[in-house]
Amino acid sequence: MRHHLKGMKQKLSIVKIGGNIIEDQESLSQFLKLFAQLEGKKVLVHGGGKRATDFGKKLGIESKMVDGRRITDAQSLEVVVMVYAGLVNKNIVAQLQASNCNAIGLSGADANTIIAEKRPVNEIDFGFVGDIIAVNSESISRLLSAAFVPVFCALTHDGRGQLFNTNADTIASEVAIALSHTYDTTLYYCFEKKGVLRTITDEDSVIRRINMESYQKLKQQKIISDGMLPKLENCFHALNKRVQRVCIGDLSMLEPKTQLFTTITL
Amino acid sequence: MRHHLKGMKQKLSIVKIGGNIIEDQESLSQFLKLFAQLEGKKVLVHGGGKRATDFGKKLGIESKMVDGRRITDAQSLEVVVMVYAGLVNKNIVAQLQASNCNAIGLSGADANTIIAEKRPVNEIDFGFVGDIIAVNSESISRLLSAAFVPVFCALTHDGRGQLFNTNADTIASEVAIALSHTYDTTLYYCFEKKGVLRTITDEDSVIRRINMESYQKLKQQKIISDGMLPKLENCFHALNKRVQRVCIGDLSMLEPKTQLFTTITL
Repeated sequence: MRHHLKGMKQKLSIVKIGGNIIEDQESLSQFLKLFAQLEGKKVLVHGGGKRATDFGKKLGIESKMVDGRRITDAQSLEVVVMVYAGLVNKNIVAQLQASNCNAIGLSGADANTIIAEKRPVNEIDFGFVGDIIAVNSESISRLLSAAFVPVFCALTHDGRGQLFNTNADTIASEVAIALSHTYDTTLYYCFEKKGVLRTITDEDSVIRRINMESYQKLKQQKIISDGMLPKLENCFHALNKRVQRVCIGDLSMLEPKTQLFTTITL
Repeated sequence: MRHHLKGMKQKLSIVKIGGNIIEDQESLSQFLKLFAQLEGKKVLVHGGGKRATDFGKKLGIESKMVDGRRITDAQSLEVVVMVYAGLVNKNIVAQLQASNCNAIGLSGADANTIIAEKRPVNEIDFGFVGDIIAVNSESISRLLSAAFVPVFCALTHDGRGQLFNTNADTIASEVAIALSHTYDTTLYYCFEKKGVLRTITDEDSVIRRINMESYQKLKQQKIISDGMLPKLENCFHALNKRVQRVCIGDLSMLEPKTQLFTTITL
């Protein structure tokens, strides 16, 4: 019975695009055309890339770093809100509309979709960085049912008037987890490489399948390291929370016929 | 029969707030509390105020003026998009959410709600300024039916990927006109004064009712002049296009018991 109900669920794709795609106008517009053609219900999640840093510099606001990690003070938050929810989000929405995709741009405050709390201060006070405590899947489902395509930027709110800067990878996985109860959900992490690479210098050395067991080995062998580790942790977290499928690759992953990307399974 | 159907229409309030309210954090938060408490379906439309000019200056972008009218070049448009759709819109949405008002921030590109074309170049090329050619009332109605409260900033799009700067008063009246077919619509222009004043130096000299006839007289007598003229032209345009009621006043206009504001009728 359960299996039968699962089979009845509508398909939903959650696609996250990274900074490198957003910053290159050519890649972005190529990506958005593929995304617009993607069949079924879908959600886009985007980061902000280096634009926020660039605008911050122009405004005389230096990015504060502690132990290599960015601190979001009040001024930096203003810049992040302007760039993520304004410049980047609205240009993406306008371009999707041009491809007949009925996009609606959202921060986590819009329609009360993503609620967060300020990251607890231990050794470091990250400032206005929010850790997600709830995704309002009911609100997002209402938008999807009304035939809109939600486009999330990397902002959340606390429900008491405060906006937060939140990691876009985490937004993507938490939105996917929340919606996987209602939809048959695939989470796509779309970045500049064709997938998780066995040899970082060989663009075609894509590892086609990674599961928990092979992940542990790849980690021990240092084949997977650095920035790829939190990305994969996010993937396994999503799978553990019953997201049906997680894929990592470049924008060709959204083409109907492409086979070269990494699929993550438990 | 027609009258009967009209009586069946749900009430809808379209409220436009001006720059002076937005720039003063105290007034804005007072306004948003009143707006959140307003009963029935509602829509908020906001301008951007002087913040866009301020940020433009900080970024080294001077506002270009021709014959006292602002020109929106590509760089100015970027600033306007960041400030209107980012900073101002998202802070308003987050504050409304804090008052349990399920706000959803929109530019005209979001959900393809407001379609415009570049203002024709006659003597002046205004740059990326859009004149509205269509309001997608079906899309806005879907959001209202899903119990969201649309919050529009002063941006539109051409459906081909281009965003435009568009006057917020005009957005408010065009949205009101489009929705007045479906809803019993009241359009509120909310600014820093209690209404249209008979004596500009006397804050309480509010003209309580203005119709087409008295407007012509007030214009001849120069009691109404300057910036108030296009505002009132917008009001009469809306009334001629069957918006049910138009009011001008300060934020106390939204209080259930306030009587001192200007009502415009045909």
